Amino acid sequence: MDKLHFGVAYYDEYMPTSRVDQDIDLMKKAGVTVVRIGESTWSTLEPRDGVFDFTSLDRVADAMGQAGISVIVGTPTYALPTWLVKKHPQVLATTQTGQNRYGPRQNMDITDPAFLFHAERVIRAQIGHLAGHPAVIGYQADNETKHYNNFGSAVQLRFVEQLKARFVTTDALNAAFGLDYWSNRVNAWEDFPPVEATINASLAAAYAEFQRSLVTEYLAWQVKLINEYKTPGQFVTHNFDFEWRGQSFGVQPDVDHFRASKPFDVVGIDVYHPTQEKLTGAEIAFCGDLARTLKRDNYLVLETEAQGYPEWVPFPGQLRLQAFSHFASGANMVEYWHWHSIHNSFETYWKGLLSHDLQPNATYDEAVVWGNEVARLGPHLVNLKKTNRAAFVVSNNALSAIAAHKFYFRDLGYNDILRRLYDAVYRLGIECDVLGPDEDFTPYELLFVPGLYAASDRELERLASWTEAGGTLVASLTSGFANEHVKVRTADQPGILSRALGAHYRQFTRASALPLTSKWNLAKADNVVDGWFELLESDGAEVLARYDHPHWGKYAAVTLNRFGRGWGAYLACQPSPALAEAAVQDLLTRTGQLATLGHPTWPVVRKTGVNSLGRRLAYYLNYSDSASKVPYRGLRGKELLTDRGVNTGETLTLERWGVAIVEEDRLGL
Amino acid sequence: MDKLHFGVAYYDEYMPTSRVDQDIDLMKKAGVTVVRIGESTWSTLEPRDGVFDFTSLDRVADAMGQAGISVIVGTPTYALPTWLVKKHPQVLATTQTGQNRYGPRQNMDITDPAFLFHAERVIRAQIGHLAGHPAVIGYQADNETKHYNNFGSAVQLRFVEQLKARFVTTDALNAAFGLDYWSNRVNAWEDFPPVEATINASLAAAYAEFQRSLVTEYLAWQVKLINEYKTPGQFVTHNFDFEWRGQSFGVQPDVDHFRASKPFDVVGIDVYHPTQEKLTGAEIAFCGDLARTLKRDNYLVLETEAQGYPEWVPFPGQLRLQAFSHFASGANMVEYWHWHSIHNSFETYWKGLLSHDLQPNATYDEAVVWGNEVARLGPHLVNLKKTNRAAFVVSNNALSAIAAHKFYFRDLGYNDILRRLYDAVYRLGIECDVLGPDEDFTPYELLFVPGLYAASDRELERLASWTEAGGTLVASLTSGFANEHVKVRTADQPGILSRALGAHYRQFTRASALPLTSKWNLAKADNVVDGWFELLESDGAEVLARYDHPHWGKYAAVTLNRFGRGWGAYLACQPSPALAEAAVQDLLTRTGQLATLGHPTWPVVRKTGVNSLGRRLAYYLNYSDSASKVPYRGLRGKELLTDRGVNTGETLTLERWGVAIVEEDRLGL
Amino acid sequence: MDKLHFGVAYYDEYMPTSRVDQDIDLMKKAGVTVVRIGESTWSTLEPRDGVFDFTSLDRVADAMGQAGISVIVGTPTYALPTWLVKKHPQVLATTQTGQNRYGPRQNMDITDPAFLFHAERVIRAQIGHLAGHPAVIGYQADNETKHYNNFGSAVQLRFVEQLKARFVTTDALNAAFGLDYWSNRVNAWEDFPPVEATINASLAAAYAEFQRSLVTEYLAWQVKLINEYKTPGQFVTHNFDFEWRGQSFGVQPDVDHFRASKPFDVVGIDVYHPTQEKLTGAEIAFCGDLARTLKRDNYLVLETEAQGYPEWVPFPGQLRLQAFSHFASGANMVEYWHWHSIHNSFETYWKGLLSHDLQPNATYDEAVVWGNEVARLGPHLVNLKKTNRAAFVVSNNALSAIAAHKFYFRDLGYNDILRRLYDAVYRLGIECDVLGPDEDFTPYELLFVPGLYAASDRELERLASWTEAGGTLVASLTSGFANEHVKVRTADQPGILSRALGAHYRQFTRASALPLTSKWNLAKADNVVDGWFELLESDGAEVLARYDHPHWGKYAAVTLNRFGRGWGAYLACQPSPALAEAAVQDLLTRTGQLATLGHPTWPVVRKTGVNSLGRRLAYYLNYSDSASKVPYRGLRGKELLTDRGVNTGETLTLERWGVAIVEEDRLGL
Repeated sequence: MDKLHFGVAYYDEYMPTSRVDQDIDLMKKAGVTVVRIGESTWSTLEPRDGVFDFTSLDRVADAMGQAGISVIVGTPTYALPTWLVKKHPQVLATTQTGQNRYGPRQNMDITDPAFLFHAERVIRAQIGHLAGHPAVIGYQADNETKHYNNFGSAVQLRFVEQLKARFVTTDALNAAFGLDYWSNRVNAWEDFPPVEATINASLAAAYAEFQRSLVTEYLAWQVKLINEYKTPGQFVTHNFDFEWRGQSFGVQPDVDHFRASKPFDVVGIDVYHPTQEKLTGAEIAFCGDLARTLKRDNYLVLETEAQGYPEWVPFPGQLRLQAFSHFASGANMVEYWHWHSIHNSFETYWKGLLSHDLQPNATYDEAVVWGNEVARLGPHLVNLKKTNRAAFVVSNNALSAIAAHKFYFRDLGYNDILRRLYDAVYRLGIECDVLGPDEDFTPYELLFVPGLYAASDRELERLASWTEAGGTLVASLTSGFANEHVKVRTADQPGILSRALGAHYRQFTRASALPLTSKWNLAKADNVVDGWFELLESDGAEVLARYDHPHWGKYAAVTLNRFGRGWGAYLACQPSPALAEAAVQDLLTRTGQLATLGHPTWPVVRKTGVNSLGRRLAYYLNYSDSASKVPYRGLRGKELLTDRGVNTGETLTLERWGVAIVEEDRLGL
Repeated sequence: MDKLHFGVAYYDEYMPTSRVDQDIDLMKKAGVTVVRIGESTWSTLEPRDGVFDFTSLDRVADAMGQAGISVIVGTPTYALPTWLVKKHPQVLATTQTGQNRYGPRQNMDITDPAFLFHAERVIRAQIGHLAGHPAVIGYQADNETKHYNNFGSAVQLRFVEQLKARFVTTDALNAAFGLDYWSNRVNAWEDFPPVEATINASLAAAYAEFQRSLVTEYLAWQVKLINEYKTPGQFVTHNFDFEWRGQSFGVQPDVDHFRASKPFDVVGIDVYHPTQEKLTGAEIAFCGDLARTLKRDNYLVLETEAQGYPEWVPFPGQLRLQAFSHFASGANMVEYWHWHSIHNSFETYWKGLLSHDLQPNATYDEAVVWGNEVARLGPHLVNLKKTNRAAFVVSNNALSAIAAHKFYFRDLGYNDILRRLYDAVYRLGIECDVLGPDEDFTPYELLFVPGLYAASDRELERLASWTEAGGTLVASLTSGFANEHVKVRTADQPGILSRALGAHYRQFTRASALPLTSKWNLAKADNVVDGWFELLESDGAEVLARYDHPHWGKYAAVTLNRFGRGWGAYLACQPSPALAEAAVQDLLTRTGQLATLGHPTWPVVRKTGVNSLGRRLAYYLNYSDSASKVPYRGLRGKELLTDRGVNTGETLTLERWGVAIVEEDRLGL
Repeated sequence: MDKLHFGVAYYDEYMPTSRVDQDIDLMKKAGVTVVRIGESTWSTLEPRDGVFDFTSLDRVADAMGQAGISVIVGTPTYALPTWLVKKHPQVLATTQTGQNRYGPRQNMDITDPAFLFHAERVIRAQIGHLAGHPAVIGYQADNETKHYNNFGSAVQLRFVEQLKARFVTTDALNAAFGLDYWSNRVNAWEDFPPVEATINASLAAAYAEFQRSLVTEYLAWQVKLINEYKTPGQFVTHNFDFEWRGQSFGVQPDVDHFRASKPFDVVGIDVYHPTQEKLTGAEIAFCGDLARTLKRDNYLVLETEAQGYPEWVPFPGQLRLQAFSHFASGANMVEYWHWHSIHNSFETYWKGLLSHDLQPNATYDEAVVWGNEVARLGPHLVNLKKTNRAAFVVSNNALSAIAAHKFYFRDLGYNDILRRLYDAVYRLGIECDVLGPDEDFTPYELLFVPGLYAASDRELERLASWTEAGGTLVASLTSGFANEHVKVRTADQPGILSRALGAHYRQFTRASALPLTSKWNLAKADNVVDGWFELLESDGAEVLARYDHPHWGKYAAVTLNRFGRGWGAYLACQPSPALAEAAVQDLLTRTGQLATLGHPTWPVVRKTGVNSLGRRLAYYLNYSDSASKVPYRGLRGKELLTDRGVNTGETLTLERWGVAIVEEDRLGL
């Protein structure tokens, strides 16, 4: 991609009255360069079985083309038309609670032959029709695809076939999954029971992984179809999303991003996050870090909120800050969902850039500001490349395994452990990649491994070896506990990693607001761990914090161990946010990496990279409702937004929710 | 009705042993004048298919008649007999969660032919048998009728037929309801999908309105049947109830009271409300105001609690205060549900006037007091007429529309908005009628329009014109936003009303305990708005309060606008109760109407009217556990309960939970 | 049983690799004397329909036998094998929410013929195979058996047959259950509707009782089968559990312990309870008191936690204190569930004595301590006999009746009322038996009757007569209210008991933190009652506490009445724990029984009995994280753990969570 894009999702179909020209005027004023169309409009595109109507798509594509605005065409398959459900009711997926009903989106069985037959036909018709259009620069295959909790009998049969292929005998399966427990033992493949009510965590996690593979397969199938039509220069992307926690964050339980992203030309994501007093940039950073790492390349923000939830209407300055936050993470596009607020149906109050009055408003006015800035500065900002020395290692399997033990872990999910550590690292100004457990760790000198509950021996041994060879490993609670089949290890815990960490534990318990004994000077309310914690004993590691408790006081909470040429650090508990930050700060001060990799100037976050002109850029992003000052530590350069020279050591002043972007004069590393 | 009635629901069928004579002795002592019988006793009345047994009804009617106590006969149809369900299982309605099961009341499909066939037969048998009985003064058709969330396939087919009749083409429907969104577009009537899982708010609200029409139709059908039997002087009524919020209040989501009440001779209601420290009279007032307005006539309180929930056992004085509160609102009957507490089954602890011991108790003893007072004063109290200059405008459609957007409005329902405003007005002593949006506003000078989220252009224009012509309009948040099909307007908000209010908004957001900047002197805890609020901008209106917030401080929260010869006021947020009262007090002080229509002497509430002797009555009701003093501002008259003269300007002293009723000596207006 | 047992549940089947010999070494070191095997392993024992595999059972039984460890064989029937469900899907019970699904334990229809056929066959095969094994000392029939909420049509037909047998006519049934209410009247047996959605509390309670009878019947059937095989000296037991309240306590809603325990040779129970700061011994005491009373004999603790939930990992000293607490209540066995922590599936984090590493840990080390103490002292501790003069009277029917009125009782359940009173009595050091309402009260001088909501006239009259004859009756709120059919009495309340208590009430209400007026000197936060309370009026009883309230202040909250030669005391409310203790303390000080039966030295609890050597033992159990002192009031004796002489009047010092056991030198009473 050679251009930084400002995009909006545009639904001519949803407009009370067609007003493409009026909208294009407002778009051009704001600097909009691309619209996404077509997604989820199957019932308009194919009003009757086999009858297609391209009126709306053509009208928009033509008008945009004439206005110099590019178009991304979304396949319409993520919501079902009524006639298809009427004729082939089996296209609605069956979940644990019965068959889905008509009405919502994302309720289909993505493996059902009747669904696939009709999906293929409409994709071929739509993409075939539009592929040659000069305005079209790319395609989005489906949207936020998941497996929709598919427990239909056909997919369950496939699951058993896969288990059979993997384990060959039921004895091997029984041993790996511990199925003797509560008489769950399977003594013949044909006896295999439905899994929707299983109480076996190994089986539940294996089924979750299988369900994710359905998504990988389905998306690859759509890409293959689209690839038959796409012309040179066009790309195929997908709008991947993250765990929905009232906001976007963390590993997506229902999709294996690492596998599902492979067939795409470019990675797209959506990022929705709180604003107003709650805007920290952490969700933008994490989602961007993962998206960027998937293909080690720039990515597209295919959806993010303009106004969003009523409580997310941005304060003045925030919309602009958000846009630059995405670009600073390596995004080449920021696209709002959606241009106009919807006048009927469900997402009426998930507000777009325009309110329902379809007129400019304070939020639109701010988009005009950053849209024009980006139009001016695009060549300096596009294709920002990063070479991070630190990374998080994340795992779908660990997530599913912890979820399968929810009865015991309670409200502590995998992404809670991940986020607690990520937020600490983020606030310390350490930029990270986000890796799956199978990837090459050698480019990194610092790895964060939160809650890697389920992992194979090989995975853990690779981490240990990498540490011994000079890496700094920061692992946290539950890591290493179970193997890839979610069988708990009989080894000392944290299984296999224990040696690298110089510590082990045999027991764990739970606490409520338990304080730690440490040298960190924290307020009483911050000096607490909650929930699950491990009774860690040092085997040589330095103990940085202990539990402040009459009986557990002899156990360690945070340790640091010299291991070969590297360092192994462990957090045996879920600390408060401030405590997590203090612990990581202390650990990385001792290893020296806070000085080399960090930029602890919160609430100002620095993000850097090298632009396509070969120069180092440093973004300074002020996540605060007050003006902030921050020292500039780069080489002499220019603040691009103000077009003002900046010298090394100079103090940059950022207004509330403000941004500065310094481009070094010298060509970068 | 020429008599003020003290009634009780009486179930001879439920008695451990028959004791009609003993009960009549206790009733006569208390002044009971009427009993309601028959309601919900189908399985006793028709023990086998087509076999009727009138023993119990006859015994009670005869004994009451001999004792001079009148009888209201309730049709038994609100609970199904076992044999009917056994033979015709389809009489149990199907809801979103499947078919209802035997056990509870109110689980039937009121449109099912098998149900209607058997209901008609039992009604004809029962009413035919009792119509000529001299004790019978009237009938109650069914009880608290609703649609019971009927989503059966037969009623859904009728719904589609009605849509087809209204919209003719699916294109028109798709446009009105915005069905293109998420591929919900219907391209042929025969494709119409089941609506139970719809995510389209327009469709959901339309179905809710359709469901309410089923209730209107069913009740009219029962009235028609009964009318074939009723003799001159007998009346037909229904026991309408209100939204159940742990107490009776607000617009009933499942019934259109305005339409459903038409065929009845007299309106009946039930009112259940908290007592003890929580007794304020507000529920009695609102429910009475609506009931009285439906036919612009007196109404019957067919059910209210004697003891009710255990936590509602009245403090000494409260039972009497409650009875007079009803009469002061225009009720001609106060009937307890129920005479005796029930010894088995479900409502065992919804206590009657007698406890399970069937002996006098403190609550019964107090009923004896007011029963005898009313027996003495009846001719002064019966048929109290009011001519209110103020009214609330309420809307079933707005309620359904807000409910359909619950995902965004969260715990803010229509009746929450209504109640916040009603309580403020009630405490300021302004007596109101309660109108539907279609009614004639010309008799009024002051209209309160809370949360009129969905309304047609015509409805809003009528309100604006009425204001311009001299009315005072007090509207509150979300009003005017969407049209009658729940399509959000593209106009400036509050759509169409904006001109009358001299203010508009384009954005809204949410808050938690956000203070306002105003001249009202409120405690910090009271000076807060919560949840949804609108970023209102004045176009000329005077701003009485703004948000106290660094970014939203420039927007208005409460405004008042001179519009033609009238006033348009707007509350753009959901204030705390005290804040709502302060705002309304300020607004109506400025318009002058607090002085002319109000009586702000809370906790003493004054209610007035003209009795059938042509004299003005003023009730003074002390909702307080302490004695209160209140100035008497009427003409010289007599306090009826004490038979004592009262002069203008005299101070009335009310004991804790006390009552005074002053009848002016002069014939009233 | 002639030996005090230290047991563990042992699942060779669940081990990652077989390690019986290694486990036996660790067991022998700790003093383990018995293992329970076989329970819930049907799919291993009978891998295919009719094919049995005893490998695992034989391996364990042989190895244990050689090591001198005894074996209890559990029948495997509490979890279903996959093949059985595949072939006969009807073995999964149908509940109110549909048919159960495969996966969990305890999901079967224990009355289904296909289930019973296969259960019988596997039991005969297993027990037939192992009965002659020299290590086997006994059998456990099934495990924690319940009715699993069985609402299948076959059992419902049986229920109606039983009603018909009991009531003969539907008229009699209608009268007893008050079915006329809401048209629930049944006019022909063939009309009887399904009961799963009933709103009739009488019917609900009767069905609950019927469901409990299914458990009684099923367990008797298993015992009969096993008895055909058991050899002299072997016993048959069952693992009864209690209401699961996040811990074991109270009357089990789904089992009638009094009836179901009859066919067994010895009573077994499981007791799971909080530890750490929350260890009080109350659950151990209550469950033991009930278990001991069932057969007036010693009992087995077949399951209790070693580590249990993560938050239950014991503090140092607690595991040992818990074991002695069981023995002090009359247990002859303490068996942990389970030996090793499970590496897969569901109860992975319900930790055993060994953690997943299968190595010694702090908890195991403490088991070694008490295991060896018990091995040494066993002959002094085994078969401890008690002759209590005080008892609680508990009732399954009262529990079901209160549960059926949950809408009104809210979060106040029967076991809440029971526990509030039991905890008070326990802390005052009064040892109690726990009786059903039908039992002989003459051996007792003090009866506690909490919340006996539903009871027959005969039951209440027996209590009244026993009181009049010299007993001290302490009853609490709701007692006597309804008869055995859950029909509320028309008598003064507390029905029939009113005379014995010298007080009555006609009304009741609810409160939140309502204080009492009394002479007890309680902190403000403790001097409160919550929820339901009765407006009690004395008819001669002394009033020890009144409600501190402007209107309810004239009513009594706690009364004591001289009745004949006895005392009748009543708590008309649910007091705070401290208030309950103060009330009971005052009551029993006045009756003199605190001095004769109590030992109010909390947090040290004394439990006594006579051992099989004919000597009185007194256990002193310190439920505190601090050392405590307690006066020794027995005759001269020896502290067994330290082998040190103790004189009367001497002060015993107990370390934190410490234990002392004094055996009197003289032969006991």
